[in-house]
Amino acid sequence: MEKSIDKATLSALEHGEKSGIRTVWDRYAAQRPQCGFGETGVCCRHCLQGPCRISPFGHGPKEGVCGANADVMVARGLSRAVAAGTSSHGGHAKHMAHTLLKSAIGEAADYPIRDEAKLKTVAGRIGVSIDNRDINSIALDVARKALEDFSEKESPLTWAATTVTKGRVETFLKFGVVPTGIDSTVSESMHRTTYGVDSDPVNILLGAIKCALADYAACHMATDIADILFGTPTPVVTRANLGVLKKTAVNIALHGHNPLLSDIVAQVSGEKAMNDRAKAAGASDGINVVGVCCTGNEIMMRHKIPMATSSVSQETAVLTGALDAMVVDYQCIMPSLAGIAECYHTKLITTMPIAKIPGAIHIEFHESSAKESARKIIETAIEAFQKRDPNRVNIPEISSTAYAGFSTEAIIGALSLVNKEDPLKPLIDNIVSGNIYGVCLFAGCNTVKVTQDANYFAMVKELAKNNVLILATGCASGAFGRHGFLTPEATEKYAGPGLKAVLTAVGQAAGLGGPLPLVLHMGSCVDNSRAADVAVAVANKLGVDLHMLPVVASAPEPVTEKAVAIGTWAVAAGLPTHLGVVPPVLGSKLVAEVLTSTVKDLFGGYFIVEPDPLKAAEKLLSVIGERRKGLGLMA
Amino acid sequence: MEKSIDKATLSALEHGEKSGIRTVWDRYAAQRPQCGFGETGVCCRHCLQGPCRISPFGHGPKEGVCGANADVMVARGLSRAVAAGTSSHGGHAKHMAHTLLKSAIGEAADYPIRDEAKLKTVAGRIGVSIDNRDINSIALDVARKALEDFSEKESPLTWAATTVTKGRVETFLKFGVVPTGIDSTVSESMHRTTYGVDSDPVNILLGAIKCALADYAACHMATDIADILFGTPTPVVTRANLGVLKKTAVNIALHGHNPLLSDIVAQVSGEKAMNDRAKAAGASDGINVVGVCCTGNEIMMRHKIPMATSSVSQETAVLTGALDAMVVDYQCIMPSLAGIAECYHTKLITTMPIAKIPGAIHIEFHESSAKESARKIIETAIEAFQKRDPNRVNIPEISSTAYAGFSTEAIIGALSLVNKEDPLKPLIDNIVSGNIYGVCLFAGCNTVKVTQDANYFAMVKELAKNNVLILATGCASGAFGRHGFLTPEATEKYAGPGLKAVLTAVGQAAGLGGPLPLVLHMGSCVDNSRAADVAVAVANKLGVDLHMLPVVASAPEPVTEKAVAIGTWAVAAGLPTHLGVVPPVLGSKLVAEVLTSTVKDLFGGYFIVEPDPLKAAEKLLSVIGERRKGLGLMA
Repeated sequence: MEKSIDKATLSALEHGEKSGIRTVWDRYAAQRPQCGFGETGVCCRHCLQGPCRISPFGHGPKEGVCGANADVMVARGLSRAVAAGTSSHGGHAKHMAHTLLKSAIGEAADYPIRDEAKLKTVAGRIGVSIDNRDINSIALDVARKALEDFSEKESPLTWAATTVTKGRVETFLKFGVVPTGIDSTVSESMHRTTYGVDSDPVNILLGAIKCALADYAACHMATDIADILFGTPTPVVTRANLGVLKKTAVNIALHGHNPLLSDIVAQVSGEKAMNDRAKAAGASDGINVVGVCCTGNEIMMRHKIPMATSSVSQETAVLTGALDAMVVDYQCIMPSLAGIAECYHTKLITTMPIAKIPGAIHIEFHESSAKESARKIIETAIEAFQKRDPNRVNIPEISSTAYAGFSTEAIIGALSLVNKEDPLKPLIDNIVSGNIYGVCLFAGCNTVKVTQDANYFAMVKELAKNNVLILATGCASGAFGRHGFLTPEATEKYAGPGLKAVLTAVGQAAGLGGPLPLVLHMGSCVDNSRAADVAVAVANKLGVDLHMLPVVASAPEPVTEKAVAIGTWAVAAGLPTHLGVVPPVLGSKLVAEVLTSTVKDLFGGYFIVEPDPLKAAEKLLSVIGERRKGLGLMA
Repeated sequence: MEKSIDKATLSALEHGEKSGIRTVWDRYAAQRPQCGFGETGVCCRHCLQGPCRISPFGHGPKEGVCGANADVMVARGLSRAVAAGTSSHGGHAKHMAHTLLKSAIGEAADYPIRDEAKLKTVAGRIGVSIDNRDINSIALDVARKALEDFSEKESPLTWAATTVTKGRVETFLKFGVVPTGIDSTVSESMHRTTYGVDSDPVNILLGAIKCALADYAACHMATDIADILFGTPTPVVTRANLGVLKKTAVNIALHGHNPLLSDIVAQVSGEKAMNDRAKAAGASDGINVVGVCCTGNEIMMRHKIPMATSSVSQETAVLTGALDAMVVDYQCIMPSLAGIAECYHTKLITTMPIAKIPGAIHIEFHESSAKESARKIIETAIEAFQKRDPNRVNIPEISSTAYAGFSTEAIIGALSLVNKEDPLKPLIDNIVSGNIYGVCLFAGCNTVKVTQDANYFAMVKELAKNNVLILATGCASGAFGRHGFLTPEATEKYAGPGLKAVLTAVGQAAGLGGPLPLVLHMGSCVDNSRAADVAVAVANKLGVDLHMLPVVASAPEPVTEKAVAIGTWAVAAGLPTHLGVVPPVLGSKLVAEVLTSTVKDLFGGYFIVEPDPLKAAEKLLSVIGERRKGLGLMA
């Protein structure tokens, strides 16, 4: 199997190989064959009488020591994955909420409220009064409401209940899956999956769905507060791929997920004093901040910061020999970065107390002194730059133009240039007419188990050709960015005639002098909530619920427990959701059946597991067709 | 390996075997050999690029796909086990706190406040005013304070900070392991152990300790509120082992952990109307409620309800053919019970929404209608009794006298009969003189990996002979109960001369006409907090911190993730803590070293892993000797 279809990635890997450096692909090869029990979800280590395992082929025992069968083991494993994903987005969102609170009470000077309009929109939505009140008072109430969403309370989560359709709330209530606290629901999932608690696989799965809805709330909260503190993104043009690194600059990569760190570093990196220092150290182009993974998406959306690489290829940024500092917050950070950075002059800098890596420099980040930390980080990078070995620098001169910044507000804003009174009308009219056949949200990661980007590449072409409007977040956006899909040119090249006409009309109205990009980059993984917002707006406008819309989701290369949580809430939200990698559920026919079929009867959404990208695209097109038929539209 | 040293258990198993019924021992045999990777903690399924595994023998790859090494994998696995344990005790404690709140506001008529003195003691400790206030107002404030402990806040957990020594609080602050919310800390542990977050094994372990301290708070809260709602236990005499089942009664076993259900069933089972119904159905002795596991301990402590069996042998209660209903709440309930109950007339009744079992009857329990549910449960048992097949009844006529009810208050109360002004003085004087060489708390489960009760049996004899005062909780009490160690007779038989003299003096003063039992049964697993209270009181009295006391803990047969959490907080509290089963950490020399040695330098406590019970006893005696030396006492 090829490692990647991206030439820049391959070039960097080749360079690394010459220096004898092992990467994720080598480690994957060394791990193969992987354990078949684990791959199919039928091993359990939830008590000390284990580990237990059940053959997915029906050989040997049918039950673990306690009597849990394969169905229970698989459901428990999945449920814990969702809990871990939810805890991650929850940690991120809570971090944001605490900072908003500190900002409101004057304890975080580096975090002024930059988007008062968004603050007021959010406040209005969640029932915080905005009339005749100063911004900080409103912010304080919003922050408090946000923090309330983490602990168990009598009412459903504010960030879930106020952001979905009324019909969804009723469905969630009907099936008893309404979370009332983000942290408390994570804790409940852990409790019910420990030894001797829940042994009903369907009940466990309903618990996982409840937890996933808490994940949804956390994602939405993270997006809302990031917009309030740093501004709601508007369209920007930047570049993506390793070619954005510069020989002549101090290159700093920001990697992880939370904009609380990265946005401040992006801000400070523009300071003249900082750039002068870099120049004095010999970097004629000063400081060059680039992004990796979702924190990269955050600053790409708001600061035009280019994206160097993402996800599975994160190590290649170091392999260029031109990276002076890799600064990380949390989530998706391979611990291998430490060893690889040690082979170069690159400094790996950890910043969060819950995410340390042996071998890294730890510069702990506090909101109260954010810019100070950011400057220290940049100074560390400048020092490292002075030790850079020019002979080992190999920046692949490959990068693509990338349009980003398509927040819900930006999309509605663009549409309003077509129809000011009723911005959603052009979108809906075009869906009805079939110019837009449906909508597909691409999300998730790159996995070492699939040739990097191959699934994204194949699927997007097929769907666009069939006039499917493409939204993307997270490392899906990274993949599309590397291959030029975040451009108007891609629209010209790949969009079917109907889709091309719509994207062109909106693009022209928006003054782009051409079409919108083929793929609308909506942000980081938590910004999947933006895509949900668009779908909810359309559903409300049409007076139908989400599960009737010709909207689908796809994670062609999922990796993280967060992706499992997001996929699960997408299904609960009513979306047919494609996975390009088989999750560890095949050990239970029951669980596999529930997730891919039965759940449809409850929530309308369901998982479609299909490793072949062309078949996956076909299946999604067919699902969109069914949904169109259901709405009485031309299929 | 023998299955058990308990004759009643063996008899029931033999009977079951004749009917071709498989139990936990058969399932364990079928699972063997268990996976060596899982056993040593070096497999990881925390992302979809896995499963990854690292040979504990040094063969093959040294890193997982992401670069996590064996140290990281083992630390992550342990941390998630602690998180799961904490979530379980947290769920239990929160359930109690919600009920206390409902009781206070008049929404739970079946839960009046039975122990006003305890309520006031707890209120005083946590800073809730009690002067001139009615009981319900105080209860409401206590309940609110309790619920506040679940979500993140600025200050340390009330139920941790107010229940340990000042020195411990300082130590916990020093090492950054102070939890500020029970659910939020569980969530933080899940976040830091997901893909690409914490990759520093020591940092992960410190996170696990922080989470374990949240577990401690949850345990203490569960105990406090149970006492407030149901009464603080005082010494009772009852019986233990399968012989407590009656041919001539409707036998109902209460199994699980939370007294909210079991205490009400115990109350209602005494109602004349209920017993008349049972008698009318042919049960001349009416209703016979018995306990299994910790919910059994709760009602044994407060209602003298006899204990039928516990932990690993829970299935044997059904195998007697005389059990009409097995009523379960949550935790440690083998799903296999459903299948075994189906082989008999026995009804398995689940009661909690997060703990269902296919094949069981689900009678959902609500605090607002607790007695109503309890009556329905009893009626179901009476119906089942009528289908009991007398030819299949085989109750082993074996049971032992068992003294229980040794709450901290009961122990201090007994001591105060020796010295009214200064109740702790007799205890301390006897520790100083060496009459009591030290104190050992036995806790935890029975595991199928060890001959049931064998470790307990061997260790307690050795320690008692050497004048170690023995406390017990949970299934440790179950084990001691089965073998007659919860009796004054055991004191006569096994206690060393010093210990015997002390137990006799206190027993005489308490009007028992003989010694206290050899093992003081302090309650359920959450009641390990009672043992902590005794240790804290002694430490405060002596003016030293916990890590200096000649107090040790032992879980000779640990099973659950809860046991892992409890063991971890015992270590953090400063106790040398013995485990009779090797936890899944041997795949990392670093983690094993930290847990058994390095952690001592930080917290004073550490794990002692020793499967051989006699060697374990020797090691504990030697540790007690060291501690005595440290205090300048005769070793």
